[in-house]
Amino acid sequence: MSTERLIYLPLGGAGEIGMNCYVYGYGKPGEERLIVVDLGVTFPDMDSTPGVDIIMPDITWLKENRNRIEAVFITHAHEDHIGAVGHLFNDLGAKIYARAFTSNIARHKLNEYGIEGNAVQTCSKWPETVQVGPFTIGFLPISHSIPESSALVIDSPKGRVIHTGDFKLDTTPLVGEPWDPELWAEVSKDGVKALVVDSTNVFAKHPGRSEAIVTPAVEKLVAEAENMVVATTFASNVARVRSLAEAGAKAGRSICLLGRAMRRMIEASVETGVLKDFPPVIGAEDAVNMPRDNVMLLVTGSQGERRAASAQLARGKYNGITLKEGDLFLFSSKTIPGNERGVIRIMNQFSEIGVDIVDDGDGDYHVSGHANRPDLQTMQDIVKPQIVVPMHGEHRHLREHVKLSESLGRKGVLAVNGMMIDLSGNEPKVCEYVETGRTYLDGSVQIGALDGVVRDRIRMALNGHVLVTVILDEDDEMLGDPWCEVMGLPEQGRSHAPLVDVLEEDLSQFIGRAGAKTLTDDAKLEEGLRRVTRQSALNEIGKKPEVTIVVSRLS
Amino acid sequence: MSTERLIYLPLGGAGEIGMNCYVYGYGKPGEERLIVVDLGVTFPDMDSTPGVDIIMPDITWLKENRNRIEAVFITHAHEDHIGAVGHLFNDLGAKIYARAFTSNIARHKLNEYGIEGNAVQTCSKWPETVQVGPFTIGFLPISHSIPESSALVIDSPKGRVIHTGDFKLDTTPLVGEPWDPELWAEVSKDGVKALVVDSTNVFAKHPGRSEAIVTPAVEKLVAEAENMVVATTFASNVARVRSLAEAGAKAGRSICLLGRAMRRMIEASVETGVLKDFPPVIGAEDAVNMPRDNVMLLVTGSQGERRAASAQLARGKYNGITLKEGDLFLFSSKTIPGNERGVIRIMNQFSEIGVDIVDDGDGDYHVSGHANRPDLQTMQDIVKPQIVVPMHGEHRHLREHVKLSESLGRKGVLAVNGMMIDLSGNEPKVCEYVETGRTYLDGSVQIGALDGVVRDRIRMALNGHVLVTVILDEDDEMLGDPWCEVMGLPEQGRSHAPLVDVLEEDLSQFIGRAGAKTLTDDAKLEEGLRRVTRQSALNEIGKKPEVTIVVSRLS
Repeated sequence: MSTERLIYLPLGGAGEIGMNCYVYGYGKPGEERLIVVDLGVTFPDMDSTPGVDIIMPDITWLKENRNRIEAVFITHAHEDHIGAVGHLFNDLGAKIYARAFTSNIARHKLNEYGIEGNAVQTCSKWPETVQVGPFTIGFLPISHSIPESSALVIDSPKGRVIHTGDFKLDTTPLVGEPWDPELWAEVSKDGVKALVVDSTNVFAKHPGRSEAIVTPAVEKLVAEAENMVVATTFASNVARVRSLAEAGAKAGRSICLLGRAMRRMIEASVETGVLKDFPPVIGAEDAVNMPRDNVMLLVTGSQGERRAASAQLARGKYNGITLKEGDLFLFSSKTIPGNERGVIRIMNQFSEIGVDIVDDGDGDYHVSGHANRPDLQTMQDIVKPQIVVPMHGEHRHLREHVKLSESLGRKGVLAVNGMMIDLSGNEPKVCEYVETGRTYLDGSVQIGALDGVVRDRIRMALNGHVLVTVILDEDDEMLGDPWCEVMGLPEQGRSHAPLVDVLEEDLSQFIGRAGAKTLTDDAKLEEGLRRVTRQSALNEIGKKPEVTIVVSRLS
Repeated sequence: MSTERLIYLPLGGAGEIGMNCYVYGYGKPGEERLIVVDLGVTFPDMDSTPGVDIIMPDITWLKENRNRIEAVFITHAHEDHIGAVGHLFNDLGAKIYARAFTSNIARHKLNEYGIEGNAVQTCSKWPETVQVGPFTIGFLPISHSIPESSALVIDSPKGRVIHTGDFKLDTTPLVGEPWDPELWAEVSKDGVKALVVDSTNVFAKHPGRSEAIVTPAVEKLVAEAENMVVATTFASNVARVRSLAEAGAKAGRSICLLGRAMRRMIEASVETGVLKDFPPVIGAEDAVNMPRDNVMLLVTGSQGERRAASAQLARGKYNGITLKEGDLFLFSSKTIPGNERGVIRIMNQFSEIGVDIVDDGDGDYHVSGHANRPDLQTMQDIVKPQIVVPMHGEHRHLREHVKLSESLGRKGVLAVNGMMIDLSGNEPKVCEYVETGRTYLDGSVQIGALDGVVRDRIRMALNGHVLVTVILDEDDEMLGDPWCEVMGLPEQGRSHAPLVDVLEEDLSQFIGRAGAKTLTDDAKLEEGLRRVTRQSALNEIGKKPEVTIVVSRLS
């Protein structure tokens, strides 16, 4: 007879930065009662996910074990932690628990899917706790860059786990509760079985810097600006948005928020009371009519996103506002790897207009929201966990974080998405491998990463697409000639004749030579037509296109 | 009657980093005799140029003025300066002039196109010069990161222009001639009309660092390594390849070069005598059989290129060699913006194998090959040009470089690709705009950036592709049902029926309702079918695909 165990299972976020989703369970093997921590998204890119709208963790395993799920906990309202609640709520059928600000954001996301607000339960912070199944869970405040970020204190009969969520050790974070080492020591004093911990900045060697250090630099920059000032950062970096707005207000400028995400975040912050003294804002229609040196715009699109406010301003206009020579544009942000091209495109477009760009080249206008290596060490020194489980990192981050833990004399376990870890004993053990992956929201449909849909799109993008239509009559004789249409291929190649003519000629010859065996067998005929098309294209234009064959038989 | 003038016309490289191509001319307006400086390429990416092999400057203007071209000069053998010589030589029909090492690389490229080696004329360095048309031109040595990099001293009846090529101020560059400020002062002492100058690092505030500083750090790293050591850098960074190889040899390791470009560069360096003491190298088949701690691999793929040696090693094997836990992989390189995803992918794959990664996080293992802002100032102080013409930069770099020049009391001119500048007078003047752009080598075909080919590929990648086939008989009645094939789209959507069935049903209904006016008119019929397909897909899967319609009429 098996005994109860405490398990940890990452489904997203362990082996990548993005789409966080972690599962904890307690009970007999295979019957554990489960909680889900975070339901995040990650963003597509042209290289690997063209046309996809949003990427979410594949929660097939959770759906199969739906009746075992007690609740979903959201640590904070960043998209990589909360972004999938609307899309996935109905698959899980469990209540969502979060603190007030995070709940506000979650409810809006659920509303978009017609789900009622009472699906979300607002919780108070530690020392209050909620009981769900075998777990007692508390939201332990921790500093990050968005209001009410919290670690989770997860108590089970097998001991206490602290799941840090995203964090930094900031005693002056501007929004959200400051880092409180005494509180954390108090929570940890009776022993912590496992610390499941943010690994984002494990390679950053210097101690992290406080959000507060950005303020003076931004204030100076804005005060000295002579024309319009525009600043961009992640809308969800509420601390930064506040710093920027205050710098603007201090310089006598009216603040105008541009971009839906920016307005939504500030609205939620004000509604929930976490941002009490945000400067008054004006609408875009008022900003247009004010002297340029009286306005400061706070805009979305710090990562160069094509449809966001920054990119639209760079292309010419957003909400009636245009930038001009001598205006100042501040990137109060770090460019996430992979987004460089988009950001640089915007910078050059602004350069063409004559807008002066300031970015975070010297670290004056941005600080990270994540704990650096020495801070991770401090965290371990305070919590003194029996086991360290790095999360929120790519494989290289997790591996380095395990190494760091071991160098500090602690057990570390490298658990990537799909590895179920038994935390019950003194040694963490991999007890099961669960199939995981990515689910794409594509238009209105969820598709699997391995369905082949995106693979076909990439192939068409790389190779172009040829459509071949052939009509055969009742006697399997060709009616007319083969017909080709091409998309994404040059009009002509080596022979300087139209490519479609060359292809059609080669296909005609093939059919002319084909015997009854080929002409009567759809599979054989299609295979032959495909082969001839690809070879003919290779000769003519030096590449083998994707080919779709339609054989119509009249009968 | 118009008098002679001296013109400068960038066709590539001014407004981007890559595909350098600059034109100088002297003569009566419209009749200037021309020289071309550099014929470079730039590399495609999935975002904007999927499926493209190589990007080159659009040299339509040069082709139209082919009879006026005296010669092509290549400053150095980096791909962004020399990469297009093979593809474009026959379009220009002019001899190529370069120093010995660069000539060696150029001849190999021309040979691939069946062009004879005597198309390239090897030149000696300054003070020797060559006379072509109205110009006298000398190759003035300057330090960079590849052998025999040279500025061009371009003399015409309207004065001396110095075209720097790529450079840094390195007195210990390891390969190539050291920076020689006295020589440059001597060359400049009688007055320089214009300095056409590299802008790559204008935003880097600290003075550049010498290649020599990398050596001790690499030597220490390699000496302390216990297993296989692998290092990657640009193959064309011959100085770095040399440093890396010497560090390996010093630690008693045999050097093995992996990747065609790596072997080609070292071969050319040895053949032309610019690299006299490169350590002996072994082949991959020998490296496989040696103790791991006796080998050092120097491999291509520092930018994460999927087909290069680094990426293949990360995926498992290259030339029979596999990496193992405890091996060391050094990125002795900077990741070019836009390549981060590919590089990080490799790092994580190595992490999964257990290979330790060292990158240039702290600047110990890489230095830039370009002059930083203070070095650019030094260059101006020595050359004392009448006019500064920034090149080799994106718009933001050129703009900043103009600002820097003006802050130093010099005239700067922001000239982007296609702006013809008259340098004859005391003030630079824009005298003409020439149409420029990009030409893609796609398979074996050159296509224009605006031909729509790549646009269609991107659309298929974002939206998927639906093929609709309809057959009408002699009476314009539909034969059978409309037939749909989809590529890059989900198999089913909202209704849970196959997408093709939904589309075919909607198309059938449309045709059933269509009157003779529509059925007899191909354009009208196709327009209707396209509209119905897109709308039906939008309802069903939430996106509007690309649609190709084939209407076959039996007659």
